[in-house]
Amino acid sequence: MVKNFKLLIEYDGTQYHGWQRQNGCRTIQEEIENVLCKMTCSQVVVQGSGRTDAGVHAMGQTASFLCETRIDPHQFLNGLNSLLPDDIIIKDCCYVPDDFHARFSAISKTYHYRIWNNPTPLAIGRQYIWHIQKALNTNAMQTALMCLIGTHDFIAFEKAGSLRSSTIRSIYKANLIDQHGVLTIEFQANGFLRCMVRNMVGTIVDVGRGRLSPDDIPKILMSKNRRQAGVTAPAAGLFLMEVDYKTCG
Amino acid sequence: MVKNFKLLIEYDGTQYHGWQRQNGCRTIQEEIENVLCKMTCSQVVVQGSGRTDAGVHAMGQTASFLCETRIDPHQFLNGLNSLLPDDIIIKDCCYVPDDFHARFSAISKTYHYRIWNNPTPLAIGRQYIWHIQKALNTNAMQTALMCLIGTHDFIAFEKAGSLRSSTIRSIYKANLIDQHGVLTIEFQANGFLRCMVRNMVGTIVDVGRGRLSPDDIPKILMSKNRRQAGVTAPAAGLFLMEVDYKTCG
Repeated sequence: MVKNFKLLIEYDGTQYHGWQRQNGCRTIQEEIENVLCKMTCSQVVVQGSGRTDAGVHAMGQTASFLCETRIDPHQFLNGLNSLLPDDIIIKDCCYVPDDFHARFSAISKTYHYRIWNNPTPLAIGRQYIWHIQKALNTNAMQTALMCLIGTHDFIAFEKAGSLRSSTIRSIYKANLIDQHGVLTIEFQANGFLRCMVRNMVGTIVDVGRGRLSPDDIPKILMSKNRRQAGVTAPAAGLFLMEVDYKTCG
Repeated sequence: MVKNFKLLIEYDGTQYHGWQRQNGCRTIQEEIENVLCKMTCSQVVVQGSGRTDAGVHAMGQTASFLCETRIDPHQFLNGLNSLLPDDIIIKDCCYVPDDFHARFSAISKTYHYRIWNNPTPLAIGRQYIWHIQKALNTNAMQTALMCLIGTHDFIAFEKAGSLRSSTIRSIYKANLIDQHGVLTIEFQANGFLRCMVRNMVGTIVDVGRGRLSPDDIPKILMSKNRRQAGVTAPAAGLFLMEVDYKTCG
């Protein structure tokens, strides 16, 4: 009997060309599929909740796969963790209903973006943060973030040439926490366009630098023009934190 | 006129064979000396507060160097940070009195050792922590740490074949903080023998595992026998946090 499994995955994306399998590049999906193929002696396709780009990290990526096997979730968890490289960790594995799909069943996703706002760079943990030397105006950034909450056409924050049926998304949460110079920008939405988080962060940082004002955010959304928004923030600061589903799935 | 400079240094030791210059291996001292030679067009010898072993990190290593130059501390700071690899950061540079020596003027040092005590390993930040799956008895560890405080002969915790005039050291602080499974063991002492922190941590972890009891610590100290103590904890979890001097030096 074919069973459906869900994985909860943490990874350090530094050494990978992102989540999605592609020829000639190391990807997280490929590493996990290769181990599952070894363990089950069959072709297994792992469906991620979505792609993460090259260099982006995850604390809570989810994926699902269908497999006819006697191996139980606990055995998959241990087998994967002993065979995967040490920058990919399976935090949980469980059975899910047949109709569960890591991507299509997701109702929301949460990303964190980390900025080290200090004149001196970091050596320890530099792989996980964007260093910005000049002091940012975090109050202006917080105000700008409020303008992103709600249902909007986010095409101005999308990477050019992306394939998708709609560019309308709903952002439920957009806020900034400042812990002694470590700024964490949190976004929760029903979905994100390609590079949308990094393009929003680059734009919010332009507000923090005084190059844009919070009032420019609604104008950029209205313009539907990528060139109106700010730079794409570096991949290293971005973490996929959580993917939510209706059921415990 | 020859001036004396002090550096405050952060480094990620993952890619280095420790602090001290040695032929054929990448070391932190060598990287810094090479940049200073480039900047000053002269041979500069940098004296560290002490060696750190291969793979050990520092948040607050200190070093001093004598140099006849017009370059001021601020220029050294910026020049070093733009020419050093991104896993070595100079956090501060200042003039110090002629008789200041990063090693001989130090009155105490503080190390932190980090343990991730959880059934599941970490992918993010795994370079900076020792993963121990089985739950450790942190109360027993705390009790055992108390036995290390004070002036003792620490030869049982020293790496064999080390060169030093005395094995007596005074530990001022030895305690454990548990933050949601991240255990930080802190030691402050007037000095440490070679591998002493990692050997003490390995022994304290044996107490946490129930292989040793806190009462065994005084016996191990008395035995003066390295084989009585526990394993050497991995380098990755160890951080040189701070070196203290009498003056602002």
